Amino acid sequence: MNDKAELTASNLPAGFQWGAVRAGIKASGNLDLAMAIAHGAGAAVGAAMFTTNRVVAAPVTVGRRHLAATGGRVAAVLVNSGNANCATGEPGIEGCVATCVAAAESFGCIFDEVFPSSTGIIGVPLPAEKIVAAMPELKASLGSTEQHAESFVRAIMTTDTRVKMAHAVVSVDPAQDHGNAAVVRIWGAAKGAGMIHPQLAAPPHATMLVYLFTDVAARAEHLQTALAAAVEPSFNSISIDGDTSTNDTVLLLASGASGVRLSRELSPAFDAALAEVCRSLARQIVADGEGVSHAVTLDIRGAATAADAKRVAKAIAHSPLCKTAWSSADPNWGRLLAAAGYSGAAFDPARARIWIAGQPVFEYGVRAPSFDEAAAHTAMMQPEYTIAIDLGAGSGECLFLTCDLTAEYVRINADYST
Amino acid sequence: MNDKAELTASNLPAGFQWGAVRAGIKASGNLDLAMAIAHGAGAAVGAAMFTTNRVVAAPVTVGRRHLAATGGRVAAVLVNSGNANCATGEPGIEGCVATCVAAAESFGCIFDEVFPSSTGIIGVPLPAEKIVAAMPELKASLGSTEQHAESFVRAIMTTDTRVKMAHAVVSVDPAQDHGNAAVVRIWGAAKGAGMIHPQLAAPPHATMLVYLFTDVAARAEHLQTALAAAVEPSFNSISIDGDTSTNDTVLLLASGASGVRLSRELSPAFDAALAEVCRSLARQIVADGEGVSHAVTLDIRGAATAADAKRVAKAIAHSPLCKTAWSSADPNWGRLLAAAGYSGAAFDPARARIWIAGQPVFEYGVRAPSFDEAAAHTAMMQPEYTIAIDLGAGSGECLFLTCDLTAEYVRINADYST
Repeated sequence: MNDKAELTASNLPAGFQWGAVRAGIKASGNLDLAMAIAHGAGAAVGAAMFTTNRVVAAPVTVGRRHLAATGGRVAAVLVNSGNANCATGEPGIEGCVATCVAAAESFGCIFDEVFPSSTGIIGVPLPAEKIVAAMPELKASLGSTEQHAESFVRAIMTTDTRVKMAHAVVSVDPAQDHGNAAVVRIWGAAKGAGMIHPQLAAPPHATMLVYLFTDVAARAEHLQTALAAAVEPSFNSISIDGDTSTNDTVLLLASGASGVRLSRELSPAFDAALAEVCRSLARQIVADGEGVSHAVTLDIRGAATAADAKRVAKAIAHSPLCKTAWSSADPNWGRLLAAAGYSGAAFDPARARIWIAGQPVFEYGVRAPSFDEAAAHTAMMQPEYTIAIDLGAGSGECLFLTCDLTAEYVRINADYST
Repeated sequence: MNDKAELTASNLPAGFQWGAVRAGIKASGNLDLAMAIAHGAGAAVGAAMFTTNRVVAAPVTVGRRHLAATGGRVAAVLVNSGNANCATGEPGIEGCVATCVAAAESFGCIFDEVFPSSTGIIGVPLPAEKIVAAMPELKASLGSTEQHAESFVRAIMTTDTRVKMAHAVVSVDPAQDHGNAAVVRIWGAAKGAGMIHPQLAAPPHATMLVYLFTDVAARAEHLQTALAAAVEPSFNSISIDGDTSTNDTVLLLASGASGVRLSRELSPAFDAALAEVCRSLARQIVADGEGVSHAVTLDIRGAATAADAKRVAKAIAHSPLCKTAWSSADPNWGRLLAAAGYSGAAFDPARARIWIAGQPVFEYGVRAPSFDEAAAHTAMMQPEYTIAIDLGAGSGECLFLTCDLTAEYVRINADYST
């Protein structure tokens, strides 16, 4: 697994095709309609996790229904950007279904084997007719090269400034696979830069969209277990702005085209590779967050419980005072301590310690004797660093990835141009 | 009660004196040490509420201890700005006690009748010697005119740009007071512009500091009950940035100098006046919040429970996406709906409605048919307006006061100048 290694067609999981077109949904005229299909021996096996927001977009409702109806069978993934199809009522549901029907007719599958997603503005009616009209061109755009895969990712972007992809190749021990020296490939694509604090549950819906493709052969329940385990330390452990979207979706599709079954023996290696792909995508999402200049890993240890560790991480990750201090590389550890203090976690400041980018700043109730403000300030000028907190209250811990809050974030989200 | 009416010496509660000096704690050289004393017939009766942050400043620890030791008797209030005396360990406690001892010697009271407060930077040792050295000058500064009262308020300011005061005069029905036609006066002073999301509990500690003075005669328990009731809909129902300080303190002192006892008959009028003074101060705090250009009242109704109504209010008040939209008067109701959706409150969007500044924007699952974006945009350009949400799920409700998030807030808090 190396997300820095170049993506080539031979790294892409077999059994899928990707494509994208300009359907005229985005005012910018950029790519805004993407499709992935299971190509070859019928539909792929799918597992999904959705946002836990009580307000969910129409495609989330329809996607859940389709997965339930088919027992996790997915022939095609249809994603539009530029419109979230959320808070659009019954017409929103009907529009979503109409686009699934059009895709099914185009690809010769049944309509509930089509998995829909949308991302963009909330509350504006979906121009379903534009999606339906674009179907022939969308079908013509499909292919299995890295360029096809990348067009899929580009078409699902909104305020993202960079394409987010990660891949892994798992070598299968011949002894585990009836003597075959085979490989299993995983490729993942993600979008999301704002309204990012995914709280995914299985099976439910973020406007983080993540699509994971693999050519392993597996049952839906097995994929769901692997996905839930991979999502917790990755997408469920990041926050850009603390806003949990109405459209968050992570979908894992397995084509089976590698000919390798996800056996008990292969599971640890596959699960590890899947988790690493998810962590890489999660890191890429935070690094490309709206207005972000610093990505900060919160390494919380010594909490009474793992839940307490996450409380402290989230309080800090959502504190405007902590986040603004990071934007100017200000080692203001008092704000970190205050946020930990109101997080709800049980701890005694007299037993706690804090390090910023490796620099001790707070020890056992007071400023660290060796605190070197200039050195801490310099260390915080790196684009990525870790803030470690030992609460001295137990063995609970968590790693959480977040970012600073900049004037640029405010400009992006206060830009009233509709 | 009218906080717009000019404050005069005759509106100030009898039995108190106020004063302030420059002790050299603030680098700016501004007023940074304030004192209020119960002047005349011995100590005042006090009731207090403190932050619920687990990390508390030394003066909060000492102030709690003093109130407990004296049963709520307070002869003097000693407040410094420029240094929070928080995360300063045992030396911080010792420094705080030393300043209380110096004040007690200066005023002829016992040291635990001195109530200390601090506000400013966290983690820097308190220069207690500067406070002790300033005591004679501080004593000489005391007086009971409106200028003296205002100097007290000025000296407790940090990033505040405006003085925050409110007063009320309660007329006592002669029939209720043994035939005397008397009045009871209440005067309150507050500071706080950032790290404002007070979560006060009784008796516990914000870097919101609020001092309420009255000349009614009352028992400490009675004052505590009145204070708790007044704090809930005021200071506990506001948020600027969601950060709960380590130093928040609200102190109510009653001198008894009016000669009027807080009887069962007088209580409703006194409680109402106290609540209105607290609401006025809370409004002033939000209006003067760091970088604030719009103060927004969230009027949440129709929730399953009052707790659910507050969940929705807090999710919106802490959502960077909602707050940045307000800064540009963008009627982006989708962000309001999404925040309500992840708040944890139980509701069905198909039964919910939203109005922004009186303009219908969302009704029963979809954009309001009469939504007029230009009109909503114009209405949101007012410095203060209300966002009303009816969740359609019950009869729970709350009023919560918050503000927008501007690039100026980021600039203020990212200003790394230490």
